[in-house]
Amino acid sequence: MKNIIKIAPLTMEAFASFGDVLEANGAPSFMINQNRCARYHDLANLDFIGEEARANISMAHSQPYRLPFELEMVERHPLGSQAFIPLSEQPYLVIVAEDNNGVPGMPQAFLTNGKQGVNYHRNTWHGTLTPLDTAQSFAIIDRVGKGVNVEEHHFEIPFEVTNISE
Amino acid sequence: MKNIIKIAPLTMEAFASFGDVLEANGAPSFMINQNRCARYHDLANLDFIGEEARANISMAHSQPYRLPFELEMVERHPLGSQAFIPLSEQPYLVIVAEDNNGVPGMPQAFLTNGKQGVNYHRNTWHGTLTPLDTAQSFAIIDRVGKGVNVEEHHFEIPFEVTNISE
Repeated sequence: MKNIIKIAPLTMEAFASFGDVLEANGAPSFMINQNRCARYHDLANLDFIGEEARANISMAHSQPYRLPFELEMVERHPLGSQAFIPLSEQPYLVIVAEDNNGVPGMPQAFLTNGKQGVNYHRNTWHGTLTPLDTAQSFAIIDRVGKGVNVEEHHFEIPFEVTNISE
Repeated sequence: MKNIIKIAPLTMEAFASFGDVLEANGAPSFMINQNRCARYHDLANLDFIGEEARANISMAHSQPYRLPFELEMVERHPLGSQAFIPLSEQPYLVIVAEDNNGVPGMPQAFLTNGKQGVNYHRNTWHGTLTPLDTAQSFAIIDRVGKGVNVEEHHFEIPFEVTNISE
């Protein structure tokens, strides 16, 4: 029997132990551009370690998933945080898991509200980019540098990720 | 009499002397996420100098402009590059100018195609965030650190920025 993962809305509070939610919401940090623009400042814990480590901006275009689907694998990056910023207002799924002595615990799935990016903290277990129903483009802010910066974990029994309403 | 700035489409070629165009276009650098996602790798020249300089991710929500409008000011950041990534597929204006011995030359205006971010190279003259007709949110990847990192230039006679088709 498969374990079921239900989807919850993405909030800063629920996501705090996994990473940062990047959004322009509530009171801004300060105004810029002659008061025409509200800035929400320095929202991500960018954390790049190891030899020749530096930040980069990449773009990605990801094929969609359809609910329900099987989650068979999560991964983590021991040398760097990894941020994803959607280029369209389409919600996407963010899947993360706590670490239990070097292996991922029960994954959790969050649905963005269409205006949220995320920054996974360094070494946080997470699923692959998961747009729903329609292909979607993202900006990625993560690490380049020397060293092995990915660890995959394949589940013996896949999880089933299902819609909130089911 | 005002000088007129006409708007041109944003392309990597036309923008090369000002910064980087961030887009998932053409052949990807490589595939990620079990071949479901095309990655366009390391597209921005992130260039942060000075004391305690580091990258940050901020979000911004900017009021719109309506064409035609007057361009009265440009600015530049001597200590760091500055990237803007739109969170919606609405085109926005990118205004930049070459430097002529410490002052901006004739500004140029580029319209994005809805799927493009930009990274201004360090110390490049540019206008403020310029969504058109509708407010728009952006992610910003720029510098935090010590030191004075902004220089403004106010034009004696404002420029008029007009629509491509006019």
